[in-house]
Amino acid sequence: MNIIPFPDRADWPALLARPVQSTQQIEAAVAPILAQVRAGGDAALIALAQKFDKVDLSTGGLAVTTSEIEGAESQLSDELKAAIEQAYQNIRLFHERQKQPIEKIETMPGVLCWRKSVGIEKVGLYIPGGTAPLFSTVLMLGVPAQLAGCREVILCTPSNHPAIYFAAKLVGITKVFRIGGAQAIAAMAYGTASVPQVYKIFGPGNQYVTAAKMLIAKEGIAIDMPAGPSEVAIYADDSAVPAFVAADLLSQAEHGADSQVLLVSTSKKLISMVNLALPAQLDKLPRKELAAKALLNSKAILVESEADAIDLLNAYAAEHLILSVENAEAVAEQIVNAGSIFLGNYTPESAGDYASGTNHTLPTNGFARAYSGVSLDSFVKKITIQHITPEGLQVLGPVVEVMAEAESLDAHKRAVSLRLASLTEVNPA
Amino acid sequence: MNIIPFPDRADWPALLARPVQSTQQIEAAVAPILAQVRAGGDAALIALAQKFDKVDLSTGGLAVTTSEIEGAESQLSDELKAAIEQAYQNIRLFHERQKQPIEKIETMPGVLCWRKSVGIEKVGLYIPGGTAPLFSTVLMLGVPAQLAGCREVILCTPSNHPAIYFAAKLVGITKVFRIGGAQAIAAMAYGTASVPQVYKIFGPGNQYVTAAKMLIAKEGIAIDMPAGPSEVAIYADDSAVPAFVAADLLSQAEHGADSQVLLVSTSKKLISMVNLALPAQLDKLPRKELAAKALLNSKAILVESEADAIDLLNAYAAEHLILSVENAEAVAEQIVNAGSIFLGNYTPESAGDYASGTNHTLPTNGFARAYSGVSLDSFVKKITIQHITPEGLQVLGPVVEVMAEAESLDAHKRAVSLRLASLTEVNPA
Repeated sequence: MNIIPFPDRADWPALLARPVQSTQQIEAAVAPILAQVRAGGDAALIALAQKFDKVDLSTGGLAVTTSEIEGAESQLSDELKAAIEQAYQNIRLFHERQKQPIEKIETMPGVLCWRKSVGIEKVGLYIPGGTAPLFSTVLMLGVPAQLAGCREVILCTPSNHPAIYFAAKLVGITKVFRIGGAQAIAAMAYGTASVPQVYKIFGPGNQYVTAAKMLIAKEGIAIDMPAGPSEVAIYADDSAVPAFVAADLLSQAEHGADSQVLLVSTSKKLISMVNLALPAQLDKLPRKELAAKALLNSKAILVESEADAIDLLNAYAAEHLILSVENAEAVAEQIVNAGSIFLGNYTPESAGDYASGTNHTLPTNGFARAYSGVSLDSFVKKITIQHITPEGLQVLGPVVEVMAEAESLDAHKRAVSLRLASLTEVNPA
Repeated sequence: MNIIPFPDRADWPALLARPVQSTQQIEAAVAPILAQVRAGGDAALIALAQKFDKVDLSTGGLAVTTSEIEGAESQLSDELKAAIEQAYQNIRLFHERQKQPIEKIETMPGVLCWRKSVGIEKVGLYIPGGTAPLFSTVLMLGVPAQLAGCREVILCTPSNHPAIYFAAKLVGITKVFRIGGAQAIAAMAYGTASVPQVYKIFGPGNQYVTAAKMLIAKEGIAIDMPAGPSEVAIYADDSAVPAFVAADLLSQAEHGADSQVLLVSTSKKLISMVNLALPAQLDKLPRKELAAKALLNSKAILVESEADAIDLLNAYAAEHLILSVENAEAVAEQIVNAGSIFLGNYTPESAGDYASGTNHTLPTNGFARAYSGVSLDSFVKKITIQHITPEGLQVLGPVVEVMAEAESLDAHKRAVSLRLASLTEVNPA
């Protein structure tokens, strides 16, 4: 890792900047794919699978059969099934507690206001193919969808890994489609004869998938959040175990050459020891080429004080933030920008990636400044409801009349005045 | 209103479709404005104000002075001040109860997970100019921003109405800029010498403002939600007072010729009586031309049953839904798509527009299928935090190892294995 000692605050923005992704070119490639699926439906999906993935979907159909989903379980080891089930339970427990009871609030006598949560009726999940079959993401998206009571949850994935199908079954998903890439996003956004149209789309993907999501978001289909390469920042002091810090840096770096890895410390010794630990650990990884590339772009920043470290971490707004420092919980209280925070020596990021219960779909690329990770809230809408009694309107009405008049919205005022007049007639007192 | 008796379900989508807005042309006009502000900063803002609004901002400065904001109060009647203060209190009360206490959840022994809410550090509010000075929207956005603890809240508005400045002062906003249109959105998204850059932008506006918001959202700046023309749907039965229903329809219609107004009923008599009540009420409105145009496009739909009405209303997904029926609360329980619901004869939409306490920034255009209205949640991020003890990792770790291995993420697995190995060394038991 490149060590950057005591950078000037004026240099922080450049130091912490993510690589700029030129999206224009990718969007220009993706827009025609969206249009093709919108116009051509299933036939377009079959043609695009042939063109981009050399996969023939014309005979087996776009939908994964029920027996394939049901049969997936038998292809998994008992150990993996048990692990997935345990993760499912933990994620379910953490997200279930995010439910909020309805609370009616009387803002003035006779003016009752409340909110109710309703699951988004139709949601679509995307799980990419590639080397890593992301069944963990099926759980992370499927569990809150299930808890929210979304009536229809569909899954598009080019992967046919049995663990993905098993996870889908656990979270109650019955409609899985063998569709990958930008065309899968288009299918869920517009609907086809086979694929139901949904109102919100979730899930990771490559730059084409991400561009497709941003384009359909502009058309009013909701998406989970904008996405960029995965990233971790670690703040460590001399209480940290250098080998653990090195392992956490590598577990982020193995995601890909564009992964962002940042180490911040007030201890030059700690940084040196982490740097010493890295090569031996790196050498043992099957994905060592990828991880080594990511490390080349990564930075170890030496800062003067804890206050500097906290300011720097808040400026960076990491997706994952590991606080491997003695007073981790106190430091966490001062963190305002991060997706998810991991405290102490025995809380590796991978625990949250898989099974502790928290969600792993988190804001990257500095989006943690304004966005939260996925939660139960991502799958519900909160509808406000109000009920005003005649007595309530007699108290509230005059306030509304004065404000509506000042905004020159006369009909708004009259909707109240008419009602107030009728009450005076009925109750001349 | 056009009366549509017993439409076939197959015809519902066409019947309930909103007018399609061609955004491409507007986006093409807006993109260069965004680029100009990004490159030119304050000078570009001054040039654009001159060009589009014939306003000279070069001498007075872009920022409204503190004395203008402080002095606004003296230009308002005591009645209006008191009304705004009462609305402020009600909105504050309703949104304050949306705060959630931190709850630590032990998903497995020694595995502790929780969420903390943090206000988005920098948010920008936009309030349009035009005939209606929307000080109510300053309250609707400013109150939750204040409650969320957003550190910097700025307001851009081309209006210099004292009620807007007074409302800004009430919600604690000290930075107000005389900037309107798409260039205001650009200024807040990119920052200029005068205008601080923000992480999330809220507020209504014309089609140029809306297009600017959608374009900057694609660049990763968060926005409140996509927007379209305002709309109301009213479900009324014979228990409804026709004059009230007519008044509510008109209070939506006066927003503009593109306002969407929908009446649904199982009672032909009710629809006839509302239609009879409309002309006389319309005639009294200063904005009667606008409202009359909106009514020309509006529909009264006669349905066979309550079940049909509920299905139709859920298919429409209205921004505002008034249930002027005998069993309003029971019907509300079956509504899954709506921004805000108003129950009974004495709950006009205008109550919620101004002062009952609920938020009036709501999803239009069918977006209520996936989006909620603005709430305290819109101004906070929820950061997940976890802390695992060595004992906790011994229980959870093996689950993570198995899953990481199955996803071929070896470094993820090793980050756990290393720690587990160290624990075995220390505690050979």
